[in-house]
Amino acid sequence: MAAQPVNVLITGANRGLGLEMVKQMVEAPCPVRKLFACCRDPHGPRAEALQALAKKHPGIISVIRLDATDLCSIKDSAQLVGSMVGTGGLNLLINNAGMMAKGTLRDTTPEDMQSTFNTNVMGPMNMIKEFLPHLRAAVQANGKPGMSCNKAAVISISSVLGSLDLVKQTYALFPAISYRISKTSLNMLTACAAEELKEDGILFSVLHPGWVRTDMGGDAGEIDAPESVQGMLRVIASLTEQHNGAFLDYKGKPVPW
Amino acid sequence: MAAQPVNVLITGANRGLGLEMVKQMVEAPCPVRKLFACCRDPHGPRAEALQALAKKHPGIISVIRLDATDLCSIKDSAQLVGSMVGTGGLNLLINNAGMMAKGTLRDTTPEDMQSTFNTNVMGPMNMIKEFLPHLRAAVQANGKPGMSCNKAAVISISSVLGSLDLVKQTYALFPAISYRISKTSLNMLTACAAEELKEDGILFSVLHPGWVRTDMGGDAGEIDAPESVQGMLRVIASLTEQHNGAFLDYKGKPVPW
Ligand SMILES: NC(=O)c1ccc[n+]([C@@H]2O[C@H](COP(=O)([O-])OP(=O)(O)OC[C@H]3O[C@@H](n4cnc5c(N)ncnc54)[C@H](OP(=O)(O)O)[C@@H]3O)[C@@H](O)[C@H]2O)c1
Ligand SMILES: NC(=O)c1ccc[n+]([C@@H]2O[C@H](COP(=O)([O-])OP(=O)(O)OC[C@H]3O[C@@H](n4cnc5c(N)ncnc54)[C@H](OP(=O)(O)O)[C@@H]3O)[C@@H](O)[C@H]2O)c1
Repeated sequence: MAAQPVNVLITGANRGLGLEMVKQMVEAPCPVRKLFACCRDPHGPRAEALQALAKKHPGIISVIRLDATDLCSIKDSAQLVGSMVGTGGLNLLINNAGMMAKGTLRDTTPEDMQSTFNTNVMGPMNMIKEFLPHLRAAVQANGKPGMSCNKAAVISISSVLGSLDLVKQTYALFPAISYRISKTSLNMLTACAAEELKEDGILFSVLHPGWVRTDMGGDAGEIDAPESVQGMLRVIASLTEQHNGAFLDYKGKPVPW
Repeated sequence: MAAQPVNVLITGANRGLGLEMVKQMVEAPCPVRKLFACCRDPHGPRAEALQALAKKHPGIISVIRLDATDLCSIKDSAQLVGSMVGTGGLNLLINNAGMMAKGTLRDTTPEDMQSTFNTNVMGPMNMIKEFLPHLRAAVQANGKPGMSCNKAAVISISSVLGSLDLVKQTYALFPAISYRISKTSLNMLTACAAEELKEDGILFSVLHPGWVRTDMGGDAGEIDAPESVQGMLRVIASLTEQHNGAFLDYKGKPVPW
């Protein structure tokens, strides 16, 4: 995916779309230099497939403990990653970890709202803040003008359900109000970060992965994880400063706010 | 503002736009029947102007304790209002209470994010959920088809800063990232509630009051509270089912998501 090997971090890398991203990135013809595959419980049963993959690519994949709802674990991982990438910095941060509560307005509890907000909004926000020095280091190391995911970028996995424009079309089938609010919030966070940090040369975008057959997407999903991730990696590789602050789907098509 | 007297509730009614709404509503040629003016501390110094106004309109204005971040106080106020409106129900709920933290991404703390989310999103959400029976009662009592603020409606005061489309134009002057995220969330909450409850005949909209010289808007604001509220009350009176789920400014102009 990259003209020159880059350092990449992915959250929620132990299953679903995150695990598939790790797979495709290390098996790509032009692979990554270092890939930090983050998950909540690296030594638990849910990380076995990721650990097996890491064993096959020992110099490349590092499995790192990171809970998106725990600021200390984010700070710890930022320190560890910093020590491993040094002045090369982190080129690409993918905020993929996420959760969904499905309820309507009537069913949704304050606890659903809180945990979804913590995971899907505070997680990415704290990731951006804590990894910013490493993203800045990557800009320095790259030295070229413009923006790209080979230079320095934060890609956050949002959802079409976060689109305000599309609520009328999608609500009856998928209410998931706490999830929608969290993804709209993630979109706003991204739009703001794109503005605030544009002089720094760091690109920010949100992607909709399609409706994918993962634990979250369920069996009725329209595509499988390999197809979604192939599309997203192609889109990621194509991003330039024109796409700073953009919301695109896995085919590269803009999604309305 | 209404063809027939209606029962109205306003949160954050002790100062700023909320207090001005109470003023204009009771002094309108066609006044409200009952006006529940809610504030955090009805007997404290910040509610003196509101209490003075209530004294002038004893049968109409009831000052009620309500803290938007405290679910118990919302439940208590819903019970009290229910007992006062009976089968007539509550026609118009105005979610006006709000707070703003001003920081950029860099300055914003998790605590800013949390308190802004609690006040500006969880507050309105819990208000909608707890007052829903009284809004439904108002639909029943009204008996007519269609939607309007004379029948049953929830109007939430959002902000142009919650517009994703306008971030590029507005971010440098007003970063306020936690506030933006909260208002985008309020917009999504409103769009979802509009869909979920459209069969019930309850209208949901979000309004941008303009940039107003209040404690929040500051001295540099473009208009004063009377002008903003005059505009908003005119817009509120004009809303029909066409505006269910809409985002309008105080002149009635649509704001892009
Ligand atoms: N599948 C779809 O159709 C679809 C559509 C639109 C958007 N998305 C988005 O795509 C992303 C990935 O979804 P997916 O389909 O792969 O979901 P998934 O199969 O449910 O996987 C979710 C991943 O996120 C991790 N995660 C959850 N909470 C976490 C936390 N607090 N800290 C760290 N990791 C956490 C999970 O780790 P554990 O194993 O520890 O739980 C898991 O690795 C999410 O952001 C989702 O919202 C998915
Ligand atoms: N002014 C503007 O330019 C502008 C622009 C766009 C949107 N808005 C929105 O318009 C609404 C009113 O703003 P304003 O300009 O009138 O602001 P303001 O002068 O700062 O007044 C805020 C009001 O909200 C109340 N409030 C805050 N937190 C509360 C809580 N937890 N529970 C109950 N009440 C609470 C305050 O009560 P206390 O006295 O107890 O603090 C006060 O009555 C807000 O939603 C704001 O976001 C304002």
